[in-house]
Parts: sequence; C-alpha cells; structure tokens
Amino acid sequence: MPIDTRHPREIRADIRSGKLSGITAGLGQNFAQANLAVLPKDHAYDFLLFCQRNPRPCPLIEVTDVGSPEPVGVAPGADLRTDIPRYRIYKDGVVADEVTDVTPYWRDDLVAFLLGCSFTFEWALLDAGIRLWHVEQGKNVAMWRTNVQCRPAGVFHGPMVVSMRPIASSQLSKAVTASARFPNAHGAPVHIGDPAAIGVKDIAKPDWGDAQAFKPGDVPVFWACGVTPQAVALASRPPFMITHSPGHMFITDVPNSQLAAL
Amino acid sequence: MPIDTRHPREIRADIRSGKLSGITAGLGQNFAQANLAVLPKDHAYDFLLFCQRNPRPCPLIEVTDVGSPEPVGVAPGADLRTDIPRYRIYKDGVVADEVTDVTPYWRDDLVAFLLGCSFTFEWALLDAGIRLWHVEQGKNVAMWRTNVQCRPAGVFHGPMVVSMRPIASSQLSKAVTASARFPNAHGAPVHIGDPAAIGVKDIAKPDWGDAQAFKPGDVPVFWACGVTPQAVALASRPPFMITHSPGHMFITDVPNSQLAAL
Repeated sequence: MPIDTRHPREIRADIRSGKLSGITAGLGQNFAQANLAVLPKDHAYDFLLFCQRNPRPCPLIEVTDVGSPEPVGVAPGADLRTDIPRYRIYKDGVVADEVTDVTPYWRDDLVAFLLGCSFTFEWALLDAGIRLWHVEQGKNVAMWRTNVQCRPAGVFHGPMVVSMRPIASSQLSKAVTASARFPNAHGAPVHIGDPAAIGVKDIAKPDWGDAQAFKPGDVPVFWACGVTPQAVALASRPPFMITHSPGHMFITDVPNSQLAAL
Repeated sequence: MPIDTRHPREIRADIRSGKLSGITAGLGQNFAQANLAVLPKDHAYDFLLFCQRNPRPCPLIEVTDVGSPEPVGVAPGADLRTDIPRYRIYKDGVVADEVTDVTPYWRDDLVAFLLGCSFTFEWALLDAGIRLWHVEQGKNVAMWRTNVQCRPAGVFHGPMVVSMRPIASSQLSKAVTASARFPNAHGAPVHIGDPAAIGVKDIAKPDWGDAQAFKPGDVPVFWACGVTPQAVALASRPPFMITHSPGHMFITDVPNSQLAAL
C-alpha cells in the first residue's frame, strides 16, 4: 500500500484540484480519516440524536454549522464540498449520482456529519503488534448486518452493522485494550467469539467486503461498523443525502493518537 | 452523610410520592446521578449540538424523545416530571418558579437532557483512595467561570465552568487516571496547577460553592463542571426551560461503574 506522509492539508489540496481521486487508504499517515454523511437540517436533529444514542457504530467527531461546508473542529480551512475524492448523491435513498465535487449540490440548509473510522483503531491494533489478515492481504474487512437493533431516534432505526477481524486468541486482550482507547473510532469490540450470538449465520459469507482467513487459534472479533449510520439513514429514504463513496474518506488534521480517550 | 442503599427505583418512588424532597447526595449509593435540562424542540438541536461539541462540560447520558418524560435509556419506567425532588422553571432565562412536580408545566414539544454528574468521578476518586476535602467537611466544591470558551452551537455559547478540588501531589496521577475512565461524568481534569492560566483570579474566592482548604503539597485540580450547560443555556435566555434545583439530581438505574469507558 503506498504511503503518503504529507500533512493532510497538502493532500486535501491535491484532492480539491483533482490530482488525487482514488481511495484514501495510506494517505496522511497516522491522521484520522472520517466517514461523511450530509443531510438537510430537517433530518439533522434525528440523525444527531441517533448518533448520540448509538455511539459505538456512530462516533461523531464533527458536525458543521447549518449551511457551512467547513469542519472547523477537525480541519479548519477545509471544504467538505471538494476535499473528498468521491461522493455519492442519494435521492429518496437511492444513488442518483457519483461525483468528485458536490458544490453544485450544496444547499444552505445542509449539515455535514463526520464520523470516526475503523482506520484509526486498526492503526492502534497494528501499533500494538496485532496482525490483521486483511491489511496484509490488501483485502477489505468482512461486514454483516446483525440482530442487534440500534436504539432508534425519530425517523432513524435499524440493525447495527459490524466488521469482523480474526484475532489470535493470545492477542485478544491486547485487541480490546488497544481499540477501547478510541471510542471516537468505534472503540472496543462489541462481540468476541460465537457469530450466531449476534445473528451472523455464516462467517464465510459476509454481507459486505471480503471473507477473512482464519489461522488455527484465531477468534472472530466484531467491532461496530461505520456502515451502520449510512445504512440506517438510507433505510429511512431521506429525500436528499450526500455521503463519501466507499473507501474515499475525509482526511482530518487530527492525529489518530489524539483521538484517544485516555 | 446519610447513605440510602435501596435501588434507585424505590428511592424515585419516594421522591415521586413526596416522601423524599431534599438533596440527593448519598441516595442510591453507587448509582449514577444526573443533571436535568429540559428545552422545547425548537432549541433542542442547538443544545444537543452544543453538548456534542463540548463533551467535557456537557456529557450527555440521555435525551428523551420529543414530548416523552421517560428516560428509557438510563431508567426505564421513571418519569422526569415527578422523580426529581425539586425543579426550577425558567422563563426568558429567569427563575419563574421552584416546584417538586413539573407535570403542570409539561408540554408535547419538550425534550429532556440528562447530563453526567461529578458525583460519579468523585466516587471513582474516593474509590481510588484519594481524599476529598469538601466531602470530608460536608462542603460544596469551588466553581469558577474560566476564560476558556466553549465551542458555540447555534444560539448557545459561553465560557466553560470548572470545579476545583485540592489534590495531594503524590495522588495527581491517580486522580487523572481514575476520573479519565468516566468521560460521561466530565472525565479527566481539564487543568492541573496554575489557576491564572485558565482565568481563575483568586483561588480563595470561587464564583459558586465553598472555598477549599489546601494542605501543604496540595495542587489545585480543575474539572469541567456541569454548571456549564445550564449557565450557557440560560445566558441565551430561552423563553422556557426546566432544570433540577442545585443538588437535587435525577438518580438513574446505571451503576457508576457501568459508566466507565474502559
């Protein structure tokens, strides 16, 4: 995986000018990346409340002022209309367009939500000496819809989505403590072991992403997943919504280490 | 201090019936208590966003559905209109009434916010063997308005209020780690040492509460304070707001230990 160690400001400038347009894995080494969800003010209260009630799958790290595309808390000077490589425009819950600049779609009543991303806790896991199969193989994690219902808020409701990584049983404790330090990036695992207990029927057949390979002694470890808020928001078929395209994240000015709670 | 070790459900029943009407310190030993702020839906988005942007002073542990007085997340079956010993009714930012039952004031457009309370981290400090002068003396903590501005949200803005406890220098590390585990109850100190650095001019003259006594080697330690959200909300003079009366908190069904992030 190519690593771009420049400051996120410089990388975002290249994204804004169109010089960079691919996925953001490996860009802005050790700076936190974020999921984007943009909704009209009419839906923003329910979505904000949904995130507050479901912090594991929906760890909010920034909410912009109504109409403003500047995430002043995590990247002052950035512009969320242009500084993400690729966006999806949803109308009534269906993809209507995929673009590299949402300026033509921007409105005065929009609120942008940035949510912490698994890259941050994966960095913490790797840093703690934990091997991650999908990183070594250049694959995606495996993700499932569970039978665990999120606590609803207004129009938003639905099941929690989880990602799964096989972890050596000797490293389970370390995996918990290393990720638990980052509640703003999904935090500790929500489940360790038996997939059936959370409604995952076939560990070899994920709902999204790639099936993972288990080594002898590996245990399936499940974390709340950032797909949850998007899936939940879209399930309610909002008339208008903007998200990043999968893998094309927003790169903040906040070092991963600074997102640590302790 | 008298200790009432019954389950919060039983204590709240006595509060509801009028049998208990005093301050809640010592009631429901080891169960988390919470600050109350009730605002009309019109102001709820800005207040929710203010709390999201300022989690240290405003640690949200529950937000009710619009019009519902039941905090289903932290005390299912409880009624926030009757289960707090004493309330204040504010009109245009000024106390208009002080009552033991807000049922006559309740409206279909109200949203109740419960915020974590310093009792939780003080329990963690005491549990870690840290002596707290104000607890030993039956006094209040000392509180100041600082020169640290909260990040504004909509109509809400203002300085952070802090509480201060003198801590023996040999116990500073323990005080940080013990309280840091409870981000939903203000978390780690926001400042340790020099009061002037955060705009506290006279350590002997608090803006609220009692001046604290320092033993040789004690260092002033400042935590974000739950007075902040009320002060900030009232400064914007909302037409209507309900809060608990100082010291008369809501007792949740959540054990303090369960609020721990790690």
